[in-house]
Amino acid sequence: MFLRNEWYVAGFGHEFGERPLQRWLLGEPLVLYRGASGGVVILEDRCPHRGAPISAGEVCGDAIACGYHGFTFDPSGACIHIPGTSTIPREARVRAYPAIERWGWVFVWMGEAAQADQARLPDYHWLVEPGWEGRSEYLSVKANYGLVRDNLLDLTHARYVHRKTLGTAAVTDHPISTEARGRGVRVTRVMTDIEPSPFFKRMGGFTGQVNHHQQIDFAPPCHVVINTRVSSVTGSHENRSAQFHVLNALTPENARSTHYFWGLVRNFALGDEAVTQMQQRLNRETFFEDLAILEQQQVLLDCKPAGWRPVATRNDGGCVQAERLMSRLIEAEIQARNEQ
Amino acid sequence: MFLRNEWYVAGFGHEFGERPLQRWLLGEPLVLYRGASGGVVILEDRCPHRGAPISAGEVCGDAIACGYHGFTFDPSGACIHIPGTSTIPREARVRAYPAIERWGWVFVWMGEAAQADQARLPDYHWLVEPGWEGRSEYLSVKANYGLVRDNLLDLTHARYVHRKTLGTAAVTDHPISTEARGRGVRVTRVMTDIEPSPFFKRMGGFTGQVNHHQQIDFAPPCHVVINTRVSSVTGSHENRSAQFHVLNALTPENARSTHYFWGLVRNFALGDEAVTQMQQRLNRETFFEDLAILEQQQVLLDCKPAGWRPVATRNDGGCVQAERLMSRLIEAEIQARNEQ
Amino acid sequence: MFLRNEWYVAGFGHEFGERPLQRWLLGEPLVLYRGASGGVVILEDRCPHRGAPISAGEVCGDAIACGYHGFTFDPSGACIHIPGTSTIPREARVRAYPAIERWGWVFVWMGEAAQADQARLPDYHWLVEPGWEGRSEYLSVKANYGLVRDNLLDLTHARYVHRKTLGTAAVTDHPISTEARGRGVRVTRVMTDIEPSPFFKRMGGFTGQVNHHQQIDFAPPCHVVINTRVSSVTGSHENRSAQFHVLNALTPENARSTHYFWGLVRNFALGDEAVTQMQQRLNRETFFEDLAILEQQQVLLDCKPAGWRPVATRNDGGCVQAERLMSRLIEAEIQARNEQ
Repeated sequence: MFLRNEWYVAGFGHEFGERPLQRWLLGEPLVLYRGASGGVVILEDRCPHRGAPISAGEVCGDAIACGYHGFTFDPSGACIHIPGTSTIPREARVRAYPAIERWGWVFVWMGEAAQADQARLPDYHWLVEPGWEGRSEYLSVKANYGLVRDNLLDLTHARYVHRKTLGTAAVTDHPISTEARGRGVRVTRVMTDIEPSPFFKRMGGFTGQVNHHQQIDFAPPCHVVINTRVSSVTGSHENRSAQFHVLNALTPENARSTHYFWGLVRNFALGDEAVTQMQQRLNRETFFEDLAILEQQQVLLDCKPAGWRPVATRNDGGCVQAERLMSRLIEAEIQARNEQ
Repeated sequence: MFLRNEWYVAGFGHEFGERPLQRWLLGEPLVLYRGASGGVVILEDRCPHRGAPISAGEVCGDAIACGYHGFTFDPSGACIHIPGTSTIPREARVRAYPAIERWGWVFVWMGEAAQADQARLPDYHWLVEPGWEGRSEYLSVKANYGLVRDNLLDLTHARYVHRKTLGTAAVTDHPISTEARGRGVRVTRVMTDIEPSPFFKRMGGFTGQVNHHQQIDFAPPCHVVINTRVSSVTGSHENRSAQFHVLNALTPENARSTHYFWGLVRNFALGDEAVTQMQQRLNRETFFEDLAILEQQQVLLDCKPAGWRPVATRNDGGCVQAERLMSRLIEAEIQARNEQ
Repeated sequence: MFLRNEWYVAGFGHEFGERPLQRWLLGEPLVLYRGASGGVVILEDRCPHRGAPISAGEVCGDAIACGYHGFTFDPSGACIHIPGTSTIPREARVRAYPAIERWGWVFVWMGEAAQADQARLPDYHWLVEPGWEGRSEYLSVKANYGLVRDNLLDLTHARYVHRKTLGTAAVTDHPISTEARGRGVRVTRVMTDIEPSPFFKRMGGFTGQVNHHQQIDFAPPCHVVINTRVSSVTGSHENRSAQFHVLNALTPENARSTHYFWGLVRNFALGDEAVTQMQQRLNRETFFEDLAILEQQQVLLDCKPAGWRPVATRNDGGCVQAERLMSRLIEAEIQARNEQ
């Protein structure tokens, strides 16, 4: 059901510490912590002894002792200590998930450890890129991660869901183009000589007409980067330009729930904390508008009649290609697993 | 499981307005609204585009635009506008449910639109009949609508569930008669020369002995009209009479939950708002007593042992006949559907 | 799934009164009350008439009238009155569960009444034994009763779960011995010349080294008595000794929920209410620490991967033997039922 040989975002770096944290990914219980040496560790959070939550226990150096009877595991998942006994059965181990901390986020490989390939990390480098500034936040969405992805790949919803913030008629009046790009899908929309949305009026200070470029990159399994570039039209009374990247990691908690990690960075008004706070607040409110729709959409699709199929329209190009791509990849992964 | 070619109550007229309302009937999501021309509209609340709730959108004239990407539907369920495109695929439509506003209530036909037959509307005309006065209210009951129906068809429960309000011993001491009537079932109980119940003492001002007639009419699928007539016995020191109709529409939300629309009208103390408020309050409190039983009954029947069957008694005539009638009708409807 | 021909604790004696109480045991709804003659009564809480909760009704002498239509049942479960009719169908009866009030607790036999054997009552006599003093309490645990049992049979968890209260390193440093005893299992641990736990320092006033004996008796289906004896080591500067019995009845509410009735009695500081209150509070807090683990353990085991098996260690002897014993008894009971 889920792609496993992929990098997902498991959390923010600051969530990994001496106090273990339980988080479910792809329907599996994980314990997240940071060892004494500073590395992030992600293990299966089900003690092989009795099925208790290891996360109820304590970090000891780089290892962690289960909260029930003290079975202790090192970052490789091997049991290194069982209280009251000196022999450790071979089966006393938990699965260890390869984890990488990068740009302040922590990525986890949910598939076979041997295949974990750092070169395939999704690109969120803007989080720490000089010349860019912003912040990361977390939302829990009670909907399948694919619904969140489709929300981001068809921005015409802004006109309806976000009519008071992002929406202008322009978004539906300008067609998109969709193309394969690397392992992923890119959607582009160019809107020239339009009135800026309320968000850009407020954040970028635009008063006159603008050109507005949207470029949305989807990378499997669940990574979406929206690059939004707005600039005054040539010959206008002002000469402004502003760019945002919305960074979206949509990690499945399970089939009906998504850990939504997002960052929003801009390339102007650097160092201005008030602008950062305003942009976060506006974006957060915008996402709450999406949430209300997405969670109802999940309920409605859960009980859809037999044979119900979505009706495609011109703006669905990105959604349709992403869906097809994901189906292909899932099928390929299942086949590869069966061939082993 | 549910009869479909029938009229159910979908809501009160005042609930239909410019702001769309989502309500589930028979396990299906509906959007309810009132178009600019004044008519009530009931559509399937699952947008054919992506399965989003149309009810999150906005009424535009007589049409409604989905809250996600603006697909717009007219009262017939046809899509009349897709933002950003001029061609509308034929499959872009939602089911429209025939709806009739009558006596302040709105009736919906859940079956095939072509068979919607206004002549089969249940009779709640007392809601607006001159000489009658009262009010309508709504209750959500977490129990199957059949359990609510049986509650109303065997009023001996008043002695136990409502011992402080409606109950007197008389209700179990006087037998009922049950007869088929039209498409439905009628239960009659005549109690002569009895002490009036606390409700009638308080509402009708009776102090002496009374004759109390109960007549309960069940019409499929879920309509129950209770006609209660109380009058002083001949030769008593007072000469009073009072009549109530309790109007009950038990619309299934799903198999375990019921939208209970009820009205209570009387033919005396007309124009006296204090009496209206008291009668509503007393009746509401009475229904809350039923709710506590009904919701537990649902839980207990959900886990009844294999082979468990209710034990019938003399007062169950109405329940038994109604149950048989409903089984026959459901069977007939399934057969008719299969023959198509 | 559950052993039926066994005594379970249904409640405390003071919970049985004139006001009927609904409680679910082994997934079945029961009504608990005390008849006018003073005896405790336990009946199936599903009226054979319509499936309503009898417990919503009223106790009438030694009988109880259903809260819906007044069907009245005597303590044997026979219907003795149906309002409005003089003939009572033979099938109008509910199951009556043999119940015995003893030592302030009420025991119920969940199997065939004919096999109810008072000689098999579990032994909780310390609740009223002169020379012992303490109190009983109730906890609801959202976990299978077997998980609670295993918690009590492997007290090494005290070092981790209760590190601030009961825990000392000694508990894992001293091995247990396990033996069959009667129908049950006994686990013994002797810890000599150790530092007393915070609980014993506080409750027993120990300051020097102690000998600490733990003896845990499990009796099917769900009874665990922990006998803890602490005394100053010979030649120490003090000469103290203290003994506690923790009495644990783990009654399944259903497969994922347990009624946990516990008592804690001591043989010192008799008559000192402040000590009683402190011991209850400390023990209650300790149990809450267990609850947090047990309820998560249930969730983690609910979704354990196919083929997952617990890894045994030296301290699991009691758990393993109890589990085997229960499996044998359940198998035997199923076989006996099939042979009938």
